[in-house]
Amino acid sequence: MGGGGGGGGAPPPRRGGGGAPPARFGVEGPQGVREAVRFAPEWVRDVYLTPEAAARYADDIVAPARAADLWLHEVSPEVLAAMADADAPQGVLAVLDTAAPRLEDVLAARPRLLVLLTTVRDPGNAGTVIRGADAAGADAVLVTGASVDVHSPKVVRSTAGSLFHLPVVTGLEVDGTLAALRAAGIRTLAADGVGTTLLPDADLTGAHCWVMGNEAHGLPEETRAACDDVVRVPIHGHAESLNLAMAATICLYASAGVLGSRPDAG
Amino acid sequence: MGGGGGGGGAPPPRRGGGGAPPARFGVEGPQGVREAVRFAPEWVRDVYLTPEAAARYADDIVAPARAADLWLHEVSPEVLAAMADADAPQGVLAVLDTAAPRLEDVLAARPRLLVLLTTVRDPGNAGTVIRGADAAGADAVLVTGASVDVHSPKVVRSTAGSLFHLPVVTGLEVDGTLAALRAAGIRTLAADGVGTTLLPDADLTGAHCWVMGNEAHGLPEETRAACDDVVRVPIHGHAESLNLAMAATICLYASAGVLGSRPDAG
Repeated sequence: MGGGGGGGGAPPPRRGGGGAPPARFGVEGPQGVREAVRFAPEWVRDVYLTPEAAARYADDIVAPARAADLWLHEVSPEVLAAMADADAPQGVLAVLDTAAPRLEDVLAARPRLLVLLTTVRDPGNAGTVIRGADAAGADAVLVTGASVDVHSPKVVRSTAGSLFHLPVVTGLEVDGTLAALRAAGIRTLAADGVGTTLLPDADLTGAHCWVMGNEAHGLPEETRAACDDVVRVPIHGHAESLNLAMAATICLYASAGVLGSRPDAG
Repeated sequence: MGGGGGGGGAPPPRRGGGGAPPARFGVEGPQGVREAVRFAPEWVRDVYLTPEAAARYADDIVAPARAADLWLHEVSPEVLAAMADADAPQGVLAVLDTAAPRLEDVLAARPRLLVLLTTVRDPGNAGTVIRGADAAGADAVLVTGASVDVHSPKVVRSTAGSLFHLPVVTGLEVDGTLAALRAAGIRTLAADGVGTTLLPDADLTGAHCWVMGNEAHGLPEETRAACDDVVRVPIHGHAESLNLAMAATICLYASAGVLGSRPDAG
């Protein structure tokens, strides 16, 4: 579906990642389905509800889905449970075409704040960063092919609907993406515990992209070297580090002006 | 073991919480055991290692454990696996007496920054807040009896050792704790999406305690009313909210001076 440049003749994708995203994916539970119907109706193929859920979510799912001319299917709780990955999807499930926004289009919109996930493996971390990026007013989330599949049920669930609020570009390759960001005039800030620039001292005034590494290993040296700065969230107590989602959220909120320098927050 | 005032003639504790903490609890994996041996050796009763782990962690677990005169036991991988809650405790496990610090002692030390978890249910959230509080330089974490048991394996794991870095007072009751904080001259700041004070505008200059509610329901109105201020983390995009651990971490880092007003950060 024309992802952002991954794959091709490259070696086979590693666990959970890969070049092209899946053609379709599922969204489970009222929050995710409601946000999909509201923010991305053009990608929703089918909405499945139990009779009870159809009554309960008449206003916030059924009515807008009808208004958007979407396919609504009433199914028994047993059928819905069999379709779902989660134990309790609360009677609602949707199947969507994968949007697959392209990096070129994101850059053409002159973004101010981005985050690039290079090798994030944990679904909860990836989803939480997408949610945090949305809350901090980021313009898009960029994800490499070596990261977890953001369309997997656990990631979709932990984004709490934010997957449909901002473009999430997948299947990227690190070096090419950093080069494209630089060409677009966007500073790249590696977030890593080895950084010598402390977050409160980082220059967050212009357009920039936070670059996040792996949960356990951080960013490889060559990626840090390819970024414009390496920034460390200060650790005050005895903790060795913050987890990836927390560090990303703090960095993004610093960019949004809640912390430190306060540029033109949205 | 003399917890911080919960229980007594009160109704039976709800799921995962309760007045008195368990007398002993387990810590699994090298990171947690290393931090326990280093920061809380007086509470460690036994350390169990496989032969392979004993060799691998000779310097950072075995040597300091011997220096602290702790009981070390070499066990087979099968025995260790049978003892552990996690699938892969990486060959290391310790059993600790529960420390059960008291609120009075925490307050007597004139803390500057605290966080109170009132009804946190998810183990990962509770552990992540403890880790974030440690990283932000908080003086202690306070937990009510209606919250998840912080000595359960999933919470211990997700604190990444921070459980041993700062006092974690459990079994508290909300109203009495808020009154004790006020009597000690500590401002109470409810963190809740309904707050009218935005985080960048909150007064974080004096000693204060962040008060966190339930993941799904936030704080009840009576608890918000009992606090000195109700503070909201700004949401810039279309996200409805941040998850509890993210919101707590952002608030704590704002207090630590990384964000916004920047008081006397540690």
